[in-house]
Amino acid sequence: SQLHPRSFPNTTDSLKRRRRLNSNIPGIGFLKIHAPWNILCREAEFLKLKMPTKKVYEVNQGNNIVENIRLFIHKVTAPLHPKVDCSRPQSVKPLSHPFSREKQHLWRSLVLQWGSLVLQWGVRGPLSGGSLVLQWGVRGPFSPRVRLRSSAGCDAVCSHRKYFGEKVGLYFAWLGVYTQMLIPAAIVGVIVFLYGCATVDDDIPSMEICDPRNNITMCPMCDSACSYWRLSSACGTARASHLFDNPATVFFSIFMALWAVLFMEHWKRRQMRLNYIWDLTGYEEEECPRRLCVVSALLGRCYGHHDSPLCPPPLFQNEKVKLTCTDRMPAYLTTLVMMAFMITVTFAIVFGVILYRITIKSLLHFSSYPAARSNIRATVKTTAAIINLIAIIIMDEIYAAIARWLTRLEVPKTDKSFEDRLIFKTFILKFVNAFTPIVYLAFFRGRLVGRPGSYLYVVGSYRMEECAHAGCLMELCIQLCITMLGKQLIQNNLFEIGIPKLKKLLRRRKTDMDAEQEAELNKRLLRHEKDHQLGPFGGLAPEYMEMIIQFGMVTLFVASFPLAPLFALLNNIIEIRLDAKKFVMGLRRPIAVRAKDIGIWYNLLRGLSKVAVIVNAFVISFTSDFIPRLVYQYMYSPDGSMHGFVNHTLSVFNTSDFQTGTAPLDPEILGYKDYREPPGSSSSYEFTKEFWAILAARLAFVILFQNVVMLMSDFIDWLIPDIPKDISLQIHKEKILMVELFMKEEQSR
Amino acid sequence: SQLHPRSFPNTTDSLKRRRRLNSNIPGIGFLKIHAPWNILCREAEFLKLKMPTKKVYEVNQGNNIVENIRLFIHKVTAPLHPKVDCSRPQSVKPLSHPFSREKQHLWRSLVLQWGSLVLQWGVRGPLSGGSLVLQWGVRGPFSPRVRLRSSAGCDAVCSHRKYFGEKVGLYFAWLGVYTQMLIPAAIVGVIVFLYGCATVDDDIPSMEICDPRNNITMCPMCDSACSYWRLSSACGTARASHLFDNPATVFFSIFMALWAVLFMEHWKRRQMRLNYIWDLTGYEEEECPRRLCVVSALLGRCYGHHDSPLCPPPLFQNEKVKLTCTDRMPAYLTTLVMMAFMITVTFAIVFGVILYRITIKSLLHFSSYPAARSNIRATVKTTAAIINLIAIIIMDEIYAAIARWLTRLEVPKTDKSFEDRLIFKTFILKFVNAFTPIVYLAFFRGRLVGRPGSYLYVVGSYRMEECAHAGCLMELCIQLCITMLGKQLIQNNLFEIGIPKLKKLLRRRKTDMDAEQEAELNKRLLRHEKDHQLGPFGGLAPEYMEMIIQFGMVTLFVASFPLAPLFALLNNIIEIRLDAKKFVMGLRRPIAVRAKDIGIWYNLLRGLSKVAVIVNAFVISFTSDFIPRLVYQYMYSPDGSMHGFVNHTLSVFNTSDFQTGTAPLDPEILGYKDYREPPGSSSSYEFTKEFWAILAARLAFVILFQNVVMLMSDFIDWLIPDIPKDISLQIHKEKILMVELFMKEEQSR
Repeated sequence: SQLHPRSFPNTTDSLKRRRRLNSNIPGIGFLKIHAPWNILCREAEFLKLKMPTKKVYEVNQGNNIVENIRLFIHKVTAPLHPKVDCSRPQSVKPLSHPFSREKQHLWRSLVLQWGSLVLQWGVRGPLSGGSLVLQWGVRGPFSPRVRLRSSAGCDAVCSHRKYFGEKVGLYFAWLGVYTQMLIPAAIVGVIVFLYGCATVDDDIPSMEICDPRNNITMCPMCDSACSYWRLSSACGTARASHLFDNPATVFFSIFMALWAVLFMEHWKRRQMRLNYIWDLTGYEEEECPRRLCVVSALLGRCYGHHDSPLCPPPLFQNEKVKLTCTDRMPAYLTTLVMMAFMITVTFAIVFGVILYRITIKSLLHFSSYPAARSNIRATVKTTAAIINLIAIIIMDEIYAAIARWLTRLEVPKTDKSFEDRLIFKTFILKFVNAFTPIVYLAFFRGRLVGRPGSYLYVVGSYRMEECAHAGCLMELCIQLCITMLGKQLIQNNLFEIGIPKLKKLLRRRKTDMDAEQEAELNKRLLRHEKDHQLGPFGGLAPEYMEMIIQFGMVTLFVASFPLAPLFALLNNIIEIRLDAKKFVMGLRRPIAVRAKDIGIWYNLLRGLSKVAVIVNAFVISFTSDFIPRLVYQYMYSPDGSMHGFVNHTLSVFNTSDFQTGTAPLDPEILGYKDYREPPGSSSSYEFTKEFWAILAARLAFVILFQNVVMLMSDFIDWLIPDIPKDISLQIHKEKILMVELFMKEEQSR
Repeated sequence: SQLHPRSFPNTTDSLKRRRRLNSNIPGIGFLKIHAPWNILCREAEFLKLKMPTKKVYEVNQGNNIVENIRLFIHKVTAPLHPKVDCSRPQSVKPLSHPFSREKQHLWRSLVLQWGSLVLQWGVRGPLSGGSLVLQWGVRGPFSPRVRLRSSAGCDAVCSHRKYFGEKVGLYFAWLGVYTQMLIPAAIVGVIVFLYGCATVDDDIPSMEICDPRNNITMCPMCDSACSYWRLSSACGTARASHLFDNPATVFFSIFMALWAVLFMEHWKRRQMRLNYIWDLTGYEEEECPRRLCVVSALLGRCYGHHDSPLCPPPLFQNEKVKLTCTDRMPAYLTTLVMMAFMITVTFAIVFGVILYRITIKSLLHFSSYPAARSNIRATVKTTAAIINLIAIIIMDEIYAAIARWLTRLEVPKTDKSFEDRLIFKTFILKFVNAFTPIVYLAFFRGRLVGRPGSYLYVVGSYRMEECAHAGCLMELCIQLCITMLGKQLIQNNLFEIGIPKLKKLLRRRKTDMDAEQEAELNKRLLRHEKDHQLGPFGGLAPEYMEMIIQFGMVTLFVASFPLAPLFALLNNIIEIRLDAKKFVMGLRRPIAVRAKDIGIWYNLLRGLSKVAVIVNAFVISFTSDFIPRLVYQYMYSPDGSMHGFVNHTLSVFNTSDFQTGTAPLDPEILGYKDYREPPGSSSSYEFTKEFWAILAARLAFVILFQNVVMLMSDFIDWLIPDIPKDISLQIHKEKILMVELFMKEEQSR
């Protein structure tokens, strides 16, 4: 109510009817602005808004086979779809053409289309000359607020687009495609897991470990506190490892790499199809100078002419501040330093958790309760993973705030560049945060331990932790499982539902009203006042980010955890409904923004799927036992079977070589998992020929895997056209029809 | 002259003045067609042809630093530029807008721009209902045939575009950018080569080989005919190898991988700049159905409306042939089989050359002339390389014909798809043809030889050839050198100049005229008749293909031949002039085609530069001695120097283990280059631990090199924006100006 109407420009053709609305909320005033017909026409012309003409044409229903597959998938996934009336895609589409005032007769019933577009925004007057709060609603043919409730997927995407604008519509379309694509991945993942379960009894190495006759005494897992242990006590872990570490995993990670490419291709095609349906073909996105034309962003575009009533005079117009390189340098330096510092913090936290694990393990070994001692391993693993999870969740929030602060320091020129920079920074920080513990587990744990007799010590006298006998894959799996489930359950769903509820509760506390009073007030409030009470729309970045990190979990370490796609799928089925509910019911209606694609997110997805190939190659060849088994079977096994593999992976150690005081000296010969020469020879404890041969095989596998998968991905990318064939045919048809239309019109003149 | 004028449609607004021209060439008639003003206007509107308006605006001259660098480069490379008056880019540019008949007052002097566009084509009447031959010329403001003579590069590109159309203009622009980018590559390549020359005397391994005290007797290089040889006799080859096989090569191949990325980025930016200058921003390419609208291609576009006088009724209009999958299957199968067969033929030829080398070498060993025996190696190498070269050149022509035949069998729907398929097939065949001998030399030769005592034999009793002691790099280098020089000199330049001359001579023979008569006839001929005598324009595909194969030579095996960029540069400086001369003087003027980019060629370039990374990684780690040297220096050398490396790479062999009859039995212990256990032990002649360690190091290097270079390439790709900053600013400015112009116009109404 503090804003004077005169602060809007009052040129001849400005917005005509401006009217103060009565407000039931103290301290807040509303201003209703009516945009007259001729202004809307002109703006539409500048925007090159494609409008449907009178001419309609038949739409080819795509290839028969593809269409049938689509229908089949639709039928199968029917229980997943929300219950909205999904009308079949229409077989007739009006021809669209950029609006032109000279040819108004071409368009049909413009009034019905957007004639009643009334801009209506609530302007909260700032006392200190701050920003305007825009809130927009459209009265007219579409007010489908209620119908849209928690609807997503299928044709509901088009309703989303009509109500929220193309950008939000694209998000829901993308989420729908992603969730749909997760279904086959989840199914194959479950099959791979079941294959592991089914073959666990046929696995010769774990049988050999479990065999009590194979009674090898192993080197202690920690100094002083731990004692020697029998190999057969690792039986359970070895059997559990086989569930995730079997040949099917290799197949599955190739499958997932190609799946990622297919997903990307599928999305590109879907995006093209949406562009066609939404008449965005030919639309070029323009860059918006930041804060200069907030208002004109209402119509999803910006231009620099200040005569336009929709564009208020820019805030910094007279200053014409142009920042030079020297001006920007401090901000860039701060960004670099802060980013490096934050990444270091993440590393420090992970290192802290490692130290926690080492110390707790030694302490528990000393403990006198036998129950504690027997469950040591499980306890330590689980608590460490939970601590990690909590640290990740807390740091995620901090990092988001820091990224926003850093980006604001940089003063990017356009809104798009602001968003891109913010997303890029947040992505790096959150990605490092989420994946550092996992990367440590997959590639570093158990590799930097030294060997019996010359262990590696960190921070004084902490011996680096070893993996269980059957490799670190099992622990990696537990960590992934806890991170994925925990992050998704706590961060995404609990936060997204809980925090708004909490805020509402707090606000109610503040105004000292009980539920009845509030309900009564709500009844009195008008639509726009009710909308104002909702939270502001904070952009799509957090929603996308959540999904991208999840995509990373699903693709990056899929070789170690084939159930990841299933977890992701279950989460997304909930997520898509929660998001829709939040956008429709919980937040103010966002300003509709035109967009042709999902922008930087696509690049991040592509980057992730590229990194996934190399990460999976390394997980298979270095973290899992796949390659040593193959090498043993084809190079060293006397009878071509896996019998004797366990013995082959063990080296022997003479306890007399222990540094005094670190271990008891009872049996003389101990086993440990490594490929080293036996004691006694001139090259004792050096790596054996087998070690180098297996290393070469592992590296060769990485090269082979990476290049084969990359080649296959590129081939798929090349094979599948970016524009669906029926769409490209229809675009071509549209052009021909348009030419015909104009020719006919010309001849009739 | 057999074609009746009535076969052109005669609707109300068809082409107005059609006039038979008198012809001085027997059997050929010319038809002059005038397109009236209103038709041109309408066509321009449909084409959304951007025309300069009256409004002009100032063009920012780009960033100061970049502009200065550009000027500096321009000055340095001045001697390479042809002597045409390169006017500086203008500082003022007229605002362009798609032409619209409603707003004719906006455009300036349309008559001067294209009002005088007169279509004039010679129609050669076919007796059997065949095709029309179109020949087009434009009278009016530009007829710069003479001025353009052999001009290329710099602003001449714009004249090329005006005269030939955008597609040919882009080719010359691309060739210019490529040649320009070759300059730094050639300079660095020469420096690397000179570094090799300078350090050849400090190279310890070759010093050790040349040292006569190191008198190791080596296993014979071939069966029976060859005898033992002294290691010191390989002195020359070892020293020569160092020229190409030194640490600088590793640096150079990383440099060239990044160079390729930079080249691509630079080209993308240049293309964007040209699009802006040529007013092609926003222009969308349309797909032309094949053979349906040859004539409308005159204006560089196609559409399906048959009322248009420029578009004759399609040839197959009434038949409406739609080929199904089953119809196309035989053609696709033929293509697959033929391609496989052709590739097999290439392999067979290469294998034939290998057999030639083996047999000739044994034969020459038996020869009694001592001169022949001493030059065996050089003779065999050179003749084999020349035979290879001749085979490549002959097969190239055959493959081009086969690819065209196969593509015609497939009956592609659009012109673009025809071209793309043809190019793709030709590329695969020519690529395999050019690179198979080189790939064999780099990766297979010397690797499939077995070991003394159990050599590998092919085709009965031919022992596979070994490399010289210092590795195959030297032979690879010779092969590359001969292929590059020979292919470029013979195929590109000799063929391009010689064949047209030969054709002219033949034609003259046929018509039984002597030079004087011909000159007299030429004087009588009119412009269009003279033009008709020239050869038809065969498309740009052969020109691009030549350059792409050269690009492959420059990037793929650059690790083995650092002088390749220099050779390419020298060739291109000639090539660019020859091409320009050919297009201007030797061929009919091509139909101008609008194009925004170079299409499939860009994808091929990108594919090649991706393959180059992995090929170079393998060349460095497997073909060169780089990795074994590093491993020796840091793992095995007693004093950290290279002393003793030669001994380390040799294994010993006991002559008593020879299969009887394959070699004399004079000294008992021989050396051979491999990492195998000495005779006598239980594992004699098996690979040693060193072999596996070096193999692991080689593979690790491949992974490291590939991923580091790929990461750096992606980083550069991300760092450099695709659209130059000044261009994006100016496009934005243009939009603002356009809006302002229209707003002003509206208010003045």
